[in-house]
Amino acid sequence: MPYYIGDVIKDEKRLIARTPEKFRETGVEVRIDARVEEVDENTGEVRIADGERLPYDVLVLGTGTTPLMPGIPGEDLEGVFTLKKFTDAVRIKAWLREFPCRKAIIVGAGFIGMEMAEALRNLDIETRILHRGRLPVNRWDPEFSQIVLEELRRHDVDFVTDAEIRAVEKGKNHRLRLVTNHGEAEADMILMAVGVRPDVALAKQIGLPLGKSGAIGVNFSQRTVRENIYAVGDCAESFHRVSGRWVNIPLGDIANKQGRVAGRNIGGGTMIFPGIVGAQSFKVFDLEVAATGLSEWEAAEAGFSPAGVLIWGNAIAGSMPGNSKLGLKLIADRATGRLLGAQAVGTAGAVSRINTLSAALWAGLTLDDVGWLDLAYAPPFSGSWDLIHVTAQTLKRQI
Amino acid sequence: MPYYIGDVIKDEKRLIARTPEKFRETGVEVRIDARVEEVDENTGEVRIADGERLPYDVLVLGTGTTPLMPGIPGEDLEGVFTLKKFTDAVRIKAWLREFPCRKAIIVGAGFIGMEMAEALRNLDIETRILHRGRLPVNRWDPEFSQIVLEELRRHDVDFVTDAEIRAVEKGKNHRLRLVTNHGEAEADMILMAVGVRPDVALAKQIGLPLGKSGAIGVNFSQRTVRENIYAVGDCAESFHRVSGRWVNIPLGDIANKQGRVAGRNIGGGTMIFPGIVGAQSFKVFDLEVAATGLSEWEAAEAGFSPAGVLIWGNAIAGSMPGNSKLGLKLIADRATGRLLGAQAVGTAGAVSRINTLSAALWAGLTLDDVGWLDLAYAPPFSGSWDLIHVTAQTLKRQI
Repeated sequence: MPYYIGDVIKDEKRLIARTPEKFRETGVEVRIDARVEEVDENTGEVRIADGERLPYDVLVLGTGTTPLMPGIPGEDLEGVFTLKKFTDAVRIKAWLREFPCRKAIIVGAGFIGMEMAEALRNLDIETRILHRGRLPVNRWDPEFSQIVLEELRRHDVDFVTDAEIRAVEKGKNHRLRLVTNHGEAEADMILMAVGVRPDVALAKQIGLPLGKSGAIGVNFSQRTVRENIYAVGDCAESFHRVSGRWVNIPLGDIANKQGRVAGRNIGGGTMIFPGIVGAQSFKVFDLEVAATGLSEWEAAEAGFSPAGVLIWGNAIAGSMPGNSKLGLKLIADRATGRLLGAQAVGTAGAVSRINTLSAALWAGLTLDDVGWLDLAYAPPFSGSWDLIHVTAQTLKRQI
Repeated sequence: MPYYIGDVIKDEKRLIARTPEKFRETGVEVRIDARVEEVDENTGEVRIADGERLPYDVLVLGTGTTPLMPGIPGEDLEGVFTLKKFTDAVRIKAWLREFPCRKAIIVGAGFIGMEMAEALRNLDIETRILHRGRLPVNRWDPEFSQIVLEELRRHDVDFVTDAEIRAVEKGKNHRLRLVTNHGEAEADMILMAVGVRPDVALAKQIGLPLGKSGAIGVNFSQRTVRENIYAVGDCAESFHRVSGRWVNIPLGDIANKQGRVAGRNIGGGTMIFPGIVGAQSFKVFDLEVAATGLSEWEAAEAGFSPAGVLIWGNAIAGSMPGNSKLGLKLIADRATGRLLGAQAVGTAGAVSRINTLSAALWAGLTLDDVGWLDLAYAPPFSGSWDLIHVTAQTLKRQI
């Protein structure tokens, strides 16, 4: 999960240094800058980078993800960043503070790229996104990705499609130069935001089985195949309640929940993590972008026979001032009418609809239910038929 | 349902006159100003006020509600209004336009009173609410009603508690004078907003059975006990999916849905109205106020053993700018953990949470589910533990 530039408290270093102190009060010892190099299951010890060995009774792997790097010459030059950890955000902020940064390049058009484009434009930095495809955020329907693209352009973000990056070099007028199939471009910082993969190095060393997703396999108690080793967060799998499969969706709220479940079970209680439905969202400038459940492609993969419909409507009653366009796509199974997924984009009301539909997915509701859900209607908040109803009933008729 | 003053299109009269014309194009004859005085089931005719008789094969009762009047002397004076129908809004607007209206009194503190207080204050009219109780909107927890009261006062609405109204008279400095147990007050308009009851005069004349709610009893197809007589909207009952009882909740979205169901069945199709969960909301100044399901009192009435908890949190992540307080109350059954109801108040995010919880109520989810729902987390939209999770898990621990 990204840390928002706006999120990071002023004295970041003091904050980091204070963390162990804060935890000590609760009887927990926190070591920072202490990379675990090896787990020795025979002695029940972990060895940290400086050689020190620490004993454990129970081990929790919360190793997170590693940002993918493109693997091009010069990608390790100063001024080339990834954004995964809190300290990445601290480093980026320090860089922006230290040197007058006028131009930035973001490689990748996922939600980290979108959020960072907004953050950089808010600092008045000239921002360019290089993307290997034609549209940003391909988890969403192309019609919605097009809206996101327009929002980027409306805020003067330069979006370069079909881009291949080849090398990073020292720049002339700016600190860096990026060589691409479209020629060269200079910038004062380059953010590599091309994705992440679960960090399973330690898990592999221990010999823990990984799931098909490449993340660590766990059960509903967040336990791995070893009685005393748990895994939580971005490095672990989650049960997807719609597809019925174990997946890896690295998001902060899932990590939080899994941490609580592991902690409770280790502490002698019992708690299960009942799974996810794939709800996610991001904000880019004035746009809410959200999705839940399965895309059509994922639904077909999972063995469903998906049908989808995308409808544009209003976030609030048409008669109210400040009305704004909202798009909703629903995906359902042709055979059973079961809701499988949803996507929404709009200046307001997108996340709200997706959360309502996430509860519907959680419960396994069909279009017959979704088309008649009783929602809290008042003109400032929706039409008397909400876009949820209209879209569900339209899709139902089409199936 | 109230029509917002802001809702009413400028040429209201032209709009009303055009309605029959508009429908004629679709082959439907609409008579306006045609009050049905009597239904003759023997001949299959309705008699309208001017004596004309119109034959029917199928009859749909959509008689709505009648606003309650306090029954005091002078309540029929010019300048005393109720707000139920579109034409009521037109009349109020005309009155406000025609005479310089500087002072208004609203009798009653339900959501019509709240919405009208905002509308009148927006026109810079001095506004006073007289309420027989101590807090407005008693469908909500007193802690939330207190917030609504503060919002009214923050916008200079005078709120008079424990008020009994005794008479309306002609005023001296203003057009009207209201005599109350707290003395006399003058105003240029008085709005009676003390509630509504289903208009069942015709239903009674026909001999249709009414439900316990006082509204017309219908089945899931919106049919009454007569094969060819349907009832829809505010005059009819709805099945409450949480209490399992037939209730009367006069709201526009429910009326819309029931109309569609009746129409489909009359047209030879089949469609059922699967019921409601009691979702409702209103806006008052900068506050969203919403509720769904049962209150503790209603839950106990329905035979549950309710427990509730009210928690204050944030609408969005604590680290984000523009953060705002949001209060959420959940009510669940002690025996089964089943979610029974929810209430929320805040400057943002209240309706969104209530809609998500309405889907949960629709599906009959328990606190175990609600506490782990997968919602579309991103810091601009919620904390990683949403207030829904926190409140559900807190209530679960208390049960």
